[in-house]
Amino acid sequence: MNNRQHYTLKVLPLNIELRVSSGSNLWQSLIANNIDIQSSCGGTGTCGRCRVKVLKGDVACRDNKIISREENGSGIVLACLSTISSDSEISIVARPEKRIKIEGDKFSYRKNAFYTEASAVELIKKRFDPWLLRKKIIVEKPSLFYSTSDLFRFRKAVKEQAGISNIIVPLNILKKLPGILRENSWEVWVSADKLSKRVAGIQGKKGRERIFGFAVDIGTTTVVVYLVDLSDGRIVSSGADYNPQIKYGEDIINRIVYSLKDEGLKNLQKVITGKINEIASNLLREAKIENNEIAALTVSGNPTMIHLFMGVSPRFIREEPYITVANHFDYLRAAETGLCSFENAYVYTTGGIASYLGGDITSGLLAINILKKKKTSLFIDLGTNGELVVGNKDWLIGCSCSAGPAFEGGGVACGVRAEVGAIEKVTIDSDTLRCNFDVIGGSKPVGICGSGLIDLLGEMYLKGVIDRKGKFNKDIGNRYLEKTDDEYRYIIAEMNRSGSESNIYISEIDINNLMRAKAAVYSGIKTLLEEVDLKITDIDSVFIAGGLGKNLNVKNAIVIGMLPDISVEKYSFLGNTSVIGAYLSLVSEKKYRMAEKIADKVTYVELSVNMKFMDRYIAGLFLPYTDLKEFPTVEKLLFTD
Amino acid sequence: MNNRQHYTLKVLPLNIELRVSSGSNLWQSLIANNIDIQSSCGGTGTCGRCRVKVLKGDVACRDNKIISREENGSGIVLACLSTISSDSEISIVARPEKRIKIEGDKFSYRKNAFYTEASAVELIKKRFDPWLLRKKIIVEKPSLFYSTSDLFRFRKAVKEQAGISNIIVPLNILKKLPGILRENSWEVWVSADKLSKRVAGIQGKKGRERIFGFAVDIGTTTVVVYLVDLSDGRIVSSGADYNPQIKYGEDIINRIVYSLKDEGLKNLQKVITGKINEIASNLLREAKIENNEIAALTVSGNPTMIHLFMGVSPRFIREEPYITVANHFDYLRAAETGLCSFENAYVYTTGGIASYLGGDITSGLLAINILKKKKTSLFIDLGTNGELVVGNKDWLIGCSCSAGPAFEGGGVACGVRAEVGAIEKVTIDSDTLRCNFDVIGGSKPVGICGSGLIDLLGEMYLKGVIDRKGKFNKDIGNRYLEKTDDEYRYIIAEMNRSGSESNIYISEIDINNLMRAKAAVYSGIKTLLEEVDLKITDIDSVFIAGGLGKNLNVKNAIVIGMLPDISVEKYSFLGNTSVIGAYLSLVSEKKYRMAEKIADKVTYVELSVNMKFMDRYIAGLFLPYTDLKEFPTVEKLLFTD
Repeated sequence: MNNRQHYTLKVLPLNIELRVSSGSNLWQSLIANNIDIQSSCGGTGTCGRCRVKVLKGDVACRDNKIISREENGSGIVLACLSTISSDSEISIVARPEKRIKIEGDKFSYRKNAFYTEASAVELIKKRFDPWLLRKKIIVEKPSLFYSTSDLFRFRKAVKEQAGISNIIVPLNILKKLPGILRENSWEVWVSADKLSKRVAGIQGKKGRERIFGFAVDIGTTTVVVYLVDLSDGRIVSSGADYNPQIKYGEDIINRIVYSLKDEGLKNLQKVITGKINEIASNLLREAKIENNEIAALTVSGNPTMIHLFMGVSPRFIREEPYITVANHFDYLRAAETGLCSFENAYVYTTGGIASYLGGDITSGLLAINILKKKKTSLFIDLGTNGELVVGNKDWLIGCSCSAGPAFEGGGVACGVRAEVGAIEKVTIDSDTLRCNFDVIGGSKPVGICGSGLIDLLGEMYLKGVIDRKGKFNKDIGNRYLEKTDDEYRYIIAEMNRSGSESNIYISEIDINNLMRAKAAVYSGIKTLLEEVDLKITDIDSVFIAGGLGKNLNVKNAIVIGMLPDISVEKYSFLGNTSVIGAYLSLVSEKKYRMAEKIADKVTYVELSVNMKFMDRYIAGLFLPYTDLKEFPTVEKLLFTD
Repeated sequence: MNNRQHYTLKVLPLNIELRVSSGSNLWQSLIANNIDIQSSCGGTGTCGRCRVKVLKGDVACRDNKIISREENGSGIVLACLSTISSDSEISIVARPEKRIKIEGDKFSYRKNAFYTEASAVELIKKRFDPWLLRKKIIVEKPSLFYSTSDLFRFRKAVKEQAGISNIIVPLNILKKLPGILRENSWEVWVSADKLSKRVAGIQGKKGRERIFGFAVDIGTTTVVVYLVDLSDGRIVSSGADYNPQIKYGEDIINRIVYSLKDEGLKNLQKVITGKINEIASNLLREAKIENNEIAALTVSGNPTMIHLFMGVSPRFIREEPYITVANHFDYLRAAETGLCSFENAYVYTTGGIASYLGGDITSGLLAINILKKKKTSLFIDLGTNGELVVGNKDWLIGCSCSAGPAFEGGGVACGVRAEVGAIEKVTIDSDTLRCNFDVIGGSKPVGICGSGLIDLLGEMYLKGVIDRKGKFNKDIGNRYLEKTDDEYRYIIAEMNRSGSESNIYISEIDINNLMRAKAAVYSGIKTLLEEVDLKITDIDSVFIAGGLGKNLNVKNAIVIGMLPDISVEKYSFLGNTSVIGAYLSLVSEKKYRMAEKIADKVTYVELSVNMKFMDRYIAGLFLPYTDLKEFPTVEKLLFTD
């Protein structure tokens, strides 16, 4: 049994079966299959969010200080420290259904997780229009009477047989051309890149006649790589890992700051290209594919990630008036970015729109096939920044609203990042007004993170702890409302329920900061809609991708007036749409062109100088909103309860 | 005096004054100024052909075994081992006027040596149409209301202000773009390459606002580099040196053979790019120009030299049916060829026509402005191969006729290369039939080289030593005709006049080989003319470039029927037309396009399978030719003498 190279990994409660290589890292295997199990420590085994329970099989976890003896006894391991050495069955402890499933949502975790990838592959099968071609070419044999150069006759053949005229033959391939032509009696397989009009590989007629590529998403936190067979568009395998830049700064702003230091930019580029090289090399080794069979990489990411990947300073992205060096970098040789392993490959990055609306959003819009949508859609990528795009096949308008650090735990006294010990889900007992909560990792809480704060704010409002302005109702006999010298505080976890030395609470100042954050997102949506004279009710569907979005309780997000009050059935959670967009751009010429068109089509609205946004923002500093009629469901909840 | 950086070097008998840097190598200074003093040992101080006499000044020669004590006493030095440390005056010992001047030729050495370069620079002055531009660009400042990327606004400005749309900004320059734009208040100098549509440099408004390039000729024996100011087309300075590949093989064929060995190709590329880097770096250092101010290099050379420079195997150039990998290589980054010093420069090579008719010939045709010539011209580059092109502005036809090694001393019993001890000029006393000769280096002869053999053949025929078939006239009482067991031999230098242990002589077999060689050249010319239905008398002018051509006595070359019998006034000797063509291509877009047009226009005739050539070749095995009427001057000489 132990000599097998691949094992079956059954993942509960999703009931998904994966095929994994022997010795694979468990966390990487899950992420690689688009099951993005929680994690926030860079895979160092310290955050404890990736706990899984081993039900069957040989899954060995390295020693660590997170898993208690008790947990160990019941088969709990940290996925990021565990290795798979047999057919296994595991259960994700960190409540995947909670993380994703929202009340009234018809989409299951599984469907969501695989939604766009599956449909993307399906799409490619139906209509395969590659711009990276593999083609057999028969070159005319030279003679004393026809003694033109090898290059001339090769180009002539490519023009006649593959329809690409004046194809560029890079020097490294040109050097091999005469030998390969003669050894194969003038009959060769050519990998050609129609976009850059160049040869991306050449193989003998008895060769393996193959052509592959990589689709890459560089996220601020994770890196995902798909290995793709470009002869049919099939995803051969995929890999993922943390973005190793995390050690230089957890968020974009900290990385930009670090990039300004000596060697800072260089280090950031080195670790990200190194990581992509590593994941890609592993996938190639496993699939027995040579580096020189890789014809192209498409790379998607936010503007800062792409700048760092290119080794281009993101400095002015951070400084007003927030300017990128380029929104769309020209394609270039992989080696120029530091991906030196792939001598024949060019790198294509997805074009972005503005400093905080990047190629990852373009990819997302491509993944939801926005240019085919007749009805108006809202695309939201929720992280520290909320990136918003509204539109359909005819028009697109987008913005980035700085939700600020509140949802990441910043600007809130007891706020923490979504790590072990963070309260991530809150309900309030209607009678006692006592908070019930779930804590990441299951231990006592040390603070409250973004999704917990959204729950808390919604619950406080629904249960009358606060009024529409976010002020505490002091006359309802709330036993958990405490007055200090300076302020009132609502106790979420008393000291005896808390993992820290004091109460975990929320103050009016904290609430104020949260109100600003949620107001920013909703005002962004409203502003975009008003720019095109539409109302909330004109939104046909909402697509939520990335970061915070995954952990969100949509009902509460609606209650606090962060997300529009439309049927939760119109909400879809898509996971990583950035890599799906990169994949589509890689395998389909039409999709590649579509991505270019999308990036060109989005009108960018700079909110920091938009007066309407300011008006809406002020209006958004009420729960759920100044005009309650925009939130009929919330109105109903309030008056029914 | 000794602190000066430049000195004046007066060169006799040419009476030319040169400006040279302190500490310059004398041979390199001469070559760099297009005074190609003889030499054949790779500058190692062993061939002795570069002897000069120091008349004035401080010219120090390193120790060597060539210069005798006597010579040393009279101021003779080897130019290749000498350093110039003051204003100096030298005289070229190796009879430059003899080497170049031909009877009846109106062009002096000086005029020839500077003919095309001077007229090229003059031409550029008159009509300057650079494709490497320097242009001041004012980029729009971004704001919150106009927050497009730096690249977008830069491209917009370049389009509007320099007329180049969608200009490519290479990654290394893109990295600097945001900083330079802001430091210079959005006003920068851009070096742009119109052909590759890319930025080749960017400087601040207070920068030095400069743009330079190199024109390079890679000859089999020497490398010549011009440093050119691309803002006005001026030649800033030039440098030259031996092609260091010589140590791996003196001629093309030997180098191709060496290139097939392990590391052979790599070594050949390494030494040639290293040498160009070295010459170029010296020129830049002296002129205080930075490497990154170099926008482009144009490189001209025969196909084998260009293949080796590119690191592309020339193997199939040597094997039937004689195929190049490419006749025209795409332009590419300098670093890709190994010229890694010039980060912003692209390399453009002059397009060739066939395996033995390369970009050096295209450059030559450009240098003589062939596309402006209404009358028919003949261009000849005479080395081991004779490269021939006939035509005018409307048509061009060319071939390469393997003159064989006879003119290089091969296939002739007493033949040697044009090195020290070689008889290079011969006359025969009409009465005694004794040979008088000049020897390279002035010592006793050890053999006879190409120019000596042509003289000898001509003189033997004119003085009746041989008949029209190249057979000895045995009945004229020739005391120098000796019969061995096998053959008759005509003694050129008896043992007592010879530097070797035996007579230096020529046999009928030798003569036969020479007849074949000269027949090949003339038949080539005839065949080309007949292909287009023209006669010798239709040739309006003959341009002779390169190698053997420089040492040729045209009269004797006509007498033996190697060159057409037309007025010697129609002959021009142009020296190195390859570098002139590279220069023209570098500074003028029109000339660059013209070179492309020329390469496309030349119809290549493969002589080895041409029946007419074979006929003419057989006819050429007479002196001067089967039909004497084609050589009226020779006829006249024969019947007058």
